[in-house]
Amino acid sequence: MPISQLSVKAAAAASPAGLDKVALETAAVTRLLVAEGILDYSGHVSARVPGRDAFVVQNGATSRAEVTPDSMVVVDYEGRTVAGDGQPPSELAIHLQILKARPDVQAVLHCHSELAIAFTMMQGVQLVPMRARASRWKSGIPTHPDPSHIKRNEQGQALAQTLGPHHAVLMRAHGLVLVAESVQALFVDAVHFKENARALMEVLQAGASPLPLTAEEIAQIEKMESRDWHVKKLWNYYLRKCLAEDLLPRDWGAALIPSKEMMRR
Amino acid sequence: MPISQLSVKAAAAASPAGLDKVALETAAVTRLLVAEGILDYSGHVSARVPGRDAFVVQNGATSRAEVTPDSMVVVDYEGRTVAGDGQPPSELAIHLQILKARPDVQAVLHCHSELAIAFTMMQGVQLVPMRARASRWKSGIPTHPDPSHIKRNEQGQALAQTLGPHHAVLMRAHGLVLVAESVQALFVDAVHFKENARALMEVLQAGASPLPLTAEEIAQIEKMESRDWHVKKLWNYYLRKCLAEDLLPRDWGAALIPSKEMMRR
Amino acid sequence: MPISQLSVKAAAAASPAGLDKVALETAAVTRLLVAEGILDYSGHVSARVPGRDAFVVQNGATSRAEVTPDSMVVVDYEGRTVAGDGQPPSELAIHLQILKARPDVQAVLHCHSELAIAFTMMQGVQLVPMRARASRWKSGIPTHPDPSHIKRNEQGQALAQTLGPHHAVLMRAHGLVLVAESVQALFVDAVHFKENARALMEVLQAGASPLPLTAEEIAQIEKMESRDWHVKKLWNYYLRKCLAEDLLPRDWGAALIPSKEMMRR
Amino acid sequence: MPISQLSVKAAAAASPAGLDKVALETAAVTRLLVAEGILDYSGHVSARVPGRDAFVVQNGATSRAEVTPDSMVVVDYEGRTVAGDGQPPSELAIHLQILKARPDVQAVLHCHSELAIAFTMMQGVQLVPMRARASRWKSGIPTHPDPSHIKRNEQGQALAQTLGPHHAVLMRAHGLVLVAESVQALFVDAVHFKENARALMEVLQAGASPLPLTAEEIAQIEKMESRDWHVKKLWNYYLRKCLAEDLLPRDWGAALIPSKEMMRR
Repeated sequence: MPISQLSVKAAAAASPAGLDKVALETAAVTRLLVAEGILDYSGHVSARVPGRDAFVVQNGATSRAEVTPDSMVVVDYEGRTVAGDGQPPSELAIHLQILKARPDVQAVLHCHSELAIAFTMMQGVQLVPMRARASRWKSGIPTHPDPSHIKRNEQGQALAQTLGPHHAVLMRAHGLVLVAESVQALFVDAVHFKENARALMEVLQAGASPLPLTAEEIAQIEKMESRDWHVKKLWNYYLRKCLAEDLLPRDWGAALIPSKEMMRR
Repeated sequence: MPISQLSVKAAAAASPAGLDKVALETAAVTRLLVAEGILDYSGHVSARVPGRDAFVVQNGATSRAEVTPDSMVVVDYEGRTVAGDGQPPSELAIHLQILKARPDVQAVLHCHSELAIAFTMMQGVQLVPMRARASRWKSGIPTHPDPSHIKRNEQGQALAQTLGPHHAVLMRAHGLVLVAESVQALFVDAVHFKENARALMEVLQAGASPLPLTAEEIAQIEKMESRDWHVKKLWNYYLRKCLAEDLLPRDWGAALIPSKEMMRR
Repeated sequence: MPISQLSVKAAAAASPAGLDKVALETAAVTRLLVAEGILDYSGHVSARVPGRDAFVVQNGATSRAEVTPDSMVVVDYEGRTVAGDGQPPSELAIHLQILKARPDVQAVLHCHSELAIAFTMMQGVQLVPMRARASRWKSGIPTHPDPSHIKRNEQGQALAQTLGPHHAVLMRAHGLVLVAESVQALFVDAVHFKENARALMEVLQAGASPLPLTAEEIAQIEKMESRDWHVKKLWNYYLRKCLAEDLLPRDWGAALIPSKEMMRR
Repeated sequence: MPISQLSVKAAAAASPAGLDKVALETAAVTRLLVAEGILDYSGHVSARVPGRDAFVVQNGATSRAEVTPDSMVVVDYEGRTVAGDGQPPSELAIHLQILKARPDVQAVLHCHSELAIAFTMMQGVQLVPMRARASRWKSGIPTHPDPSHIKRNEQGQALAQTLGPHHAVLMRAHGLVLVAESVQALFVDAVHFKENARALMEVLQAGASPLPLTAEEIAQIEKMESRDWHVKKLWNYYLRKCLAEDLLPRDWGAALIPSKEMMRR
């Protein structure tokens, strides 16, 4: 049964408003990531359902550019599909095992970013924070050695272990995982992760010695930074852009755009 | 006589459903390759007609972005046009000789990919599998030395010989040939071939020592891989994208998109 | 109160035509810079209000792609918002302090150009004029060391000091400021700044020794150059392009496009 | 008086059909070059008027994306505007002096191609034929040393002298000139020139020793090549593409697209 019908029926029981909201946001962020060239024919976003021991992830068969809330399936932390139509993507273990291992994380992105992959193919080169916004990844960006499809729980657990307490993990010859405190923050991180990887790539390609952010610079950046405000600003910008370009159904806008009040500082 | 009329008339004799289907699929894959920037003003796709000693290829005069099933000509393995309007492209010998030499191959792409060409212009540099999906080309990617238009059968035979048992052959200063078991698989290979070539190019341009896939990594990738499912997933994604962007006539969709059942695993 | 209502009301007092015009031009140049990929989710343009001790800058909450004259706030040289709805962007200090320090400057752009940032991350590499149009920056392009958000007046003053008498300043790991004699000239400078940075980047990435413009070449270029005509030509081109692509409201055109007479030499 | 009215009036005297045709073709090729990113805010195409001692070039004030036959002015070989509205571009001397010096040339393109400019900024690097289609430039691609606006006849003469008998000349830190036997061939050359420059750039950026076309390879390429057919094929492709994307007025198509008969070999 599609989620939209389910949550109406289940209104009394669980947290349908929460499920509706997270399914819509996850569908929206998937389309935004397609629009930004971060997702294409594969990759997926998962997000915890508030007030429920479960998360949403799109079913494996739906085109990323056409995802709707009804493309979502609800999966519990044993990996069982507990609601929604269709089957979760074959790489479910990525999301399941990371969400289990990291209670602080609310949303997970797995994608096949060209730039991120490149940083797993160069002997002795490490992706590090170059641009101001990349202070987010100051604790490090590890690389997981398994280059294959992550289908099994053991593979997902190994990946979660490589991720450790960090916010990003590269996957050798394959892709990338990002984790964040919300789907909105996850989207904004994905934009900045790409910017930062491109920055280091440009510098390396210029044959120059890169000058990564120093610890002092990171401290100064963080002193002047408001992550929450910044996430709202970018979410507002990209959401409106996609709505204007009809990459999102127009009627999603009202539920997704931060209210005018929220945008005032 | 255009193929669409022909196959109706010839319905009793040969395998018109097969011809209709392969002509439509070949036209569609041509347009998808244009949309992805893999074909542009030249290059072509050929595909065997099931149940008949012949293959389809577009006539040379039609713009790649406007190809329809009626742009196809049917050519037998002597190189004679046996059905359809117009003449085959001047580089027919590429398709003819490869299809003759490789009974396992159902579809052939010839294109002028910038990245592929670059790998024929660099002293001592060999294009190798870097990204997980490029395990497809683990047996090697040879380079054919003839940089000219392949118009003569001897030239086509020499090219087929350089290709040998592999799935790809670079053509010095000129282009690329890919071969696969279906037009859908051919399209997906073309997408991944480009990704892989770009990956190695990026790494070389960064001045780093590339770390190609090892034999162990390829074995692990193949263990977790389902080529058929993957081909269907990407075909579905790109076909829907092109339909949504009106790069394909809307009424082609029904005949081309894998049914919902097929998309369930 | 939005500027459009304000200036009608204040028509007798100050210079409403001037305010209307500069608010419209600043909104237009912001959208043009978005269309050219120079602004995106952040960055802003400021411009002095003629006949008034104040300048306009967009409020911080409006998406750059949707800015209108009513998105502008009027700020005086003490940093107080004296008209318009909403609050100035959090990096107001950039504009305020540069406009205070540089009476010759009428318009200021702050953006996060990828290429400009790259030139603050490479040991021993200096961005210099390569292409003919970059003679504009012959006096030098300094780099400001503070990589953080410029929120405080002291930070803005330090930035203005690094800018000194030049027309551009890079901001370490963060972005760029350009200054010019009008918003139109500022836009044209932004286009050429990007071209020039990309030119040097391409050359460095090719592993070649760059050949920057010599003093003699710059003298020859300036002898044959008409900056005013050139600014009008490019403004006309980009404005019409954005109007044609509906990136600007159609009814802005009449007020913004140089008249046919102006375009005659 | 605009050309469209002029040629009707002058129908008895000169060669109005010729003027109409060349003005339309020159307008069309200008828009095609904009669509391909080869022209943008500046640059221009000139073409001889058949049966008349004069050539057409667009007036300097019209946006390149909006050029029509009526944007053309007719200029004689003394540089006098003899028909059409507006003034020729300020760099008229480029076209005038090259058309005077090279009776074999029918059409001239001046543009500011980023890639071409890059090859005037790298110590000891020479742009040479890499890709098969670049055999066109086997005689060499000289670089003209004057980086400034070419406004004076002496500057144009010096440029024509550097061009000599070749088909292309780079202009230091400024741009490029291509010459050909027709506007259609000029367009196709522009596409291939860019491809070839990008090919060499990619190879250099990969840090590899480039392998340019050898004399033997060029001989083999030319043996198999039909320039006329190739020009028609590409003209057909790009013209239809621009018509389909509404970058050219639809009613230009009939006059510009090679007839079906012409497309048959």
